[in-house]
Amino acid sequence: MAEYELYCFAQSGNAYRVALMLELVGADWSPVFVDFFKGGETRTPKYREEVNEMGEVPVLRHGARRLTQSSVCLTYLSRRFGKFQTQGEDEELEAWRWMVFDNQKLNGFLGTYRFFRNFLPTPGDPAVLAFLRGRAEGALAVVDKRLGKAPFLIGERPTVADVSLCGYLYYPAEEFGFDIAATYPNVAAFLERMKALPGWKHPYDLMPGWPMAK
Amino acid sequence: MAEYELYCFAQSGNAYRVALMLELVGADWSPVFVDFFKGGETRTPKYREEVNEMGEVPVLRHGARRLTQSSVCLTYLSRRFGKFQTQGEDEELEAWRWMVFDNQKLNGFLGTYRFFRNFLPTPGDPAVLAFLRGRAEGALAVVDKRLGKAPFLIGERPTVADVSLCGYLYYPAEEFGFDIAATYPNVAAFLERMKALPGWKHPYDLMPGWPMAK
Repeated sequence: MAEYELYCFAQSGNAYRVALMLELVGADWSPVFVDFFKGGETRTPKYREEVNEMGEVPVLRHGARRLTQSSVCLTYLSRRFGKFQTQGEDEELEAWRWMVFDNQKLNGFLGTYRFFRNFLPTPGDPAVLAFLRGRAEGALAVVDKRLGKAPFLIGERPTVADVSLCGYLYYPAEEFGFDIAATYPNVAAFLERMKALPGWKHPYDLMPGWPMAK
Repeated sequence: MAEYELYCFAQSGNAYRVALMLELVGADWSPVFVDFFKGGETRTPKYREEVNEMGEVPVLRHGARRLTQSSVCLTYLSRRFGKFQTQGEDEELEAWRWMVFDNQKLNGFLGTYRFFRNFLPTPGDPAVLAFLRGRAEGALAVVDKRLGKAPFLIGERPTVADVSLCGYLYYPAEEFGFDIAATYPNVAAFLERMKALPGWKHPYDLMPGWPMAK
């Protein structure tokens, strides 16, 4: 059995953050496929009782520990491997600030928008889609401005906050209906920098469940 | 000048978390009123350049430090005052897990729902309102179940995660159009426990801007 197990599926940018981190730090890990789409597995009482009461992926198992929320998993892994860590309290708090912003406002809304646009049995309501995209683009503009000042969110080197930011940003433009990289050039340059890190992989190459079974 | 300054306004449950914490730990603090509604102050270039590039409240000033994101402010204050802290890494990560969930899924959606329902020049789109309320209620159900097992989110004593959870939950039921306390009894009992802590105050008694000027 691998040292780390990650409950995930290929279409989840939240799970991707942790899968990417596991690759970037060189962890011994294996995925546990969660059948989110066909089986609604995260909504079952069994999953909520035995895996995650929040009904979400990712879940990271390490020995007796079971961690959830990607930002928590990233923090844990950065400490264990001594990579992508922040230095001192000011940097620690700054990285957390961007991770919370990212979870709520950037990838939080962007991931939900993509879900409503692509993966519902019937297309999502246009007003809801417009709301979600508007919020996500507002957050993308904030981050694009930030990344015009330094190569990574809190300065010259990548930290947990940068791995978090990757979330949904490498998924194909057609899934969003607009080209994030073309609209937000500093975000695009950042994504290329992250892509150049040893161990980087695309979410569809890293987690099970893609392409989707018909 | 007070030791701590909090950029806030009475209707912001995100700012309330930090204002409440400042009261609960007995800090020397004063509010800085942010004219969110009439002046759109958080959207101005001046605010984004000089106060918070994320265009949000709360912002906590302490000496040369300027902290944003309520969960970061709560963590900082808990360390400075040695109150509402977690013990050890497992508790630390567990509290963070609930704060991120709260920010994205519970108070994140609930606060946006309340904003769309009450504070827009024209009422928010019904489909968007239904989406936001549905998400918020899903998260409330998760937390209600959790709080059926222990008096506070991570056990027997209140921590930063519990102060965060208070967010929008004390605002009047008519602002939501449904009674949170009546629907989620364990959440209701939790809110009474928090209310009993020395220093507790209602958001409308703690921050400037209420009642709103016509």
